[in-house]
Amino acid sequence: METWERLPVGLDTPALVVDLARVEANARRLQAEMGRRGIALRPHAKTHKSVRIARLQLDAGATGLTVGTLGEAEVFATAGIVDLFIAYPVWAVGPKAARLRALYERAPGLRVGVDSVGGAEHLGVAVRGAPGRLAVIIEIDPGQHRTGVPDPSSAVEVAAAARSAGLEVIGVFSHGGHSYRPGAAEAAGADEVRALVDGAEALEAGGFEVSVVSAGSTPTMLTAATGRVTEIRPGTYVLGDHQQVVLGAIPDDGCAAVVVATVVSVFPDRVALDAGAKSLTKDRPDWLDGYGAIVGYPDLVIERLSDYHGIVRAPEGVSRPALGEVVAIVPNHICPVVDLFDDFTALLPDGSAERWLVDARGRSG
Amino acid sequence: METWERLPVGLDTPALVVDLARVEANARRLQAEMGRRGIALRPHAKTHKSVRIARLQLDAGATGLTVGTLGEAEVFATAGIVDLFIAYPVWAVGPKAARLRALYERAPGLRVGVDSVGGAEHLGVAVRGAPGRLAVIIEIDPGQHRTGVPDPSSAVEVAAAARSAGLEVIGVFSHGGHSYRPGAAEAAGADEVRALVDGAEALEAGGFEVSVVSAGSTPTMLTAATGRVTEIRPGTYVLGDHQQVVLGAIPDDGCAAVVVATVVSVFPDRVALDAGAKSLTKDRPDWLDGYGAIVGYPDLVIERLSDYHGIVRAPEGVSRPALGEVVAIVPNHICPVVDLFDDFTALLPDGSAERWLVDARGRSG
Repeated sequence: METWERLPVGLDTPALVVDLARVEANARRLQAEMGRRGIALRPHAKTHKSVRIARLQLDAGATGLTVGTLGEAEVFATAGIVDLFIAYPVWAVGPKAARLRALYERAPGLRVGVDSVGGAEHLGVAVRGAPGRLAVIIEIDPGQHRTGVPDPSSAVEVAAAARSAGLEVIGVFSHGGHSYRPGAAEAAGADEVRALVDGAEALEAGGFEVSVVSAGSTPTMLTAATGRVTEIRPGTYVLGDHQQVVLGAIPDDGCAAVVVATVVSVFPDRVALDAGAKSLTKDRPDWLDGYGAIVGYPDLVIERLSDYHGIVRAPEGVSRPALGEVVAIVPNHICPVVDLFDDFTALLPDGSAERWLVDARGRSG
Repeated sequence: METWERLPVGLDTPALVVDLARVEANARRLQAEMGRRGIALRPHAKTHKSVRIARLQLDAGATGLTVGTLGEAEVFATAGIVDLFIAYPVWAVGPKAARLRALYERAPGLRVGVDSVGGAEHLGVAVRGAPGRLAVIIEIDPGQHRTGVPDPSSAVEVAAAARSAGLEVIGVFSHGGHSYRPGAAEAAGADEVRALVDGAEALEAGGFEVSVVSAGSTPTMLTAATGRVTEIRPGTYVLGDHQQVVLGAIPDDGCAAVVVATVVSVFPDRVALDAGAKSLTKDRPDWLDGYGAIVGYPDLVIERLSDYHGIVRAPEGVSRPALGEVVAIVPNHICPVVDLFDDFTALLPDGSAERWLVDARGRSG
């Protein structure tokens, strides 16, 4: 059950609120563990999309940032954070080719994911003539079956194409997204390590030097941080969400972000909140009930969402909020929720509050 | 099956594209039908959140706009569109009270929904001392069980509280959201009409003058536009979406908005698109397969979404797009999709394209 002590008063709901003491605790806890293991932490910034939260992570010892899109990379580079890995098979044609080249010239340490011969060729064309060689990392599918080459020989084939295109192959990466099920993290982490090691060994046998072996998702951030793995890239761990609590990936007090909502209508069987699908998203894995956990009301289920209504089933006899009451909701999945808000209320450790921007909001491409 | 003829070239994907010829055709078609019936059309602007699309609707004959939040109302009022109905039980305390009052002073024709005694009292306090009387419309639950008073006597009770609070009760409204199921529109529309008439008659018996009887959702925009109903408030009809096509609420060529995506990876069993949950949302009713319809590939299903990946199941032998191909996706539910984009590519009837803003993006409260 999620907890949350510090709900600010007088908020205009729905609002996104982030407790920075928890953010810092989450950042430090994982950083310390990775320090003990000698593994770099390169957090995925798609979760928070915030330059200031990114700086907290870097100050705590993160080696750089992971991002999911060229647009996110541009925002962080503009803010002066240039050690960036776009962990995505960017298809660099048209406007994206020009943007990638401009970004690379500003951030020559940039790393980009690649999982196809065609993708490698386009990346090569996009940066042709620029100083140095753009670093690429081959994506390996560890069993999630999303993107990533399916086997070591395909990794070598893509790496060879990248080298021919003038790119510098520096390693392999995976995302163990098949860990997003109760009880799946251990096997998914092992899958990541195995797929990465097989890929790395094949690349080395093919004459490539492998300096980066990068794994990770929040559920596998501990189980995949072992062996040859040099770096992990979890995103959600720093803000937390209901899904990660239920998966056991973070502690109950690891939830640093809530959507604050007001009860706008009450009925015998339900209450209506002013947070709907445009504040909470309809992200709900089939192993979770409802669209987020209402702090302090563990028996209530947010059963339905319209754009601006959250309908909470509240049978007689169950504790429920009153008309006008303000509640905190831990979203199921924080990443797409943050992307709905232009800014958030940051609660500082000293008790004050500030408005922080979601700098890379909407930068989905 | 959705169709779409005009996909612009050279777009940076993922992108939202709106065909204005279709927008105008959708606006005119419904306006003409309501003209024949003598019923006002007050479109719900939460669908497009665009001042320029709102102007198209008003130019076609719409009587004003419906909005879902105070924030949306503020954006349209700033643009000079002041005939606004906030069809939501606004809980006007703290910052919302001050915002409501400021809005009312700029837009004295404002109408606000109310469904509780407490809500009415707060609205009254918020506008106390301002010139005139704020118009409120009592929300009636037609069987969706979201918000709205459950029966006519509750409508009278809320109306009496509103009058005591210094507000002007002008009518009743409902939203037939239980029409969002195949085959449900006729009964849901009849539910709306019955609940509204019962509410209106009870208010009249209680000494209130009922000039507004307002129904509607896109599925019930025709079935509820009858009898005593004076106004309908559909939103989605003007942009269309996959859900409305499957429900039969709009024609196949009524889809005026698509998310354009690029194929970034291909595998024997699937292809990966660069449109994920942050471009398409995870809105998927249980009677729809997948997260949107890919135009031209009717047998493909967008089976899974990550933040930036759309994974399309593509078994052998089924027609599928190639690596690097650009496709158009008709989203399941256009309203939350539009809210993800800061702007969209508007295709003008003359073949040119412009960038139009989603002016009220993120204004969820």
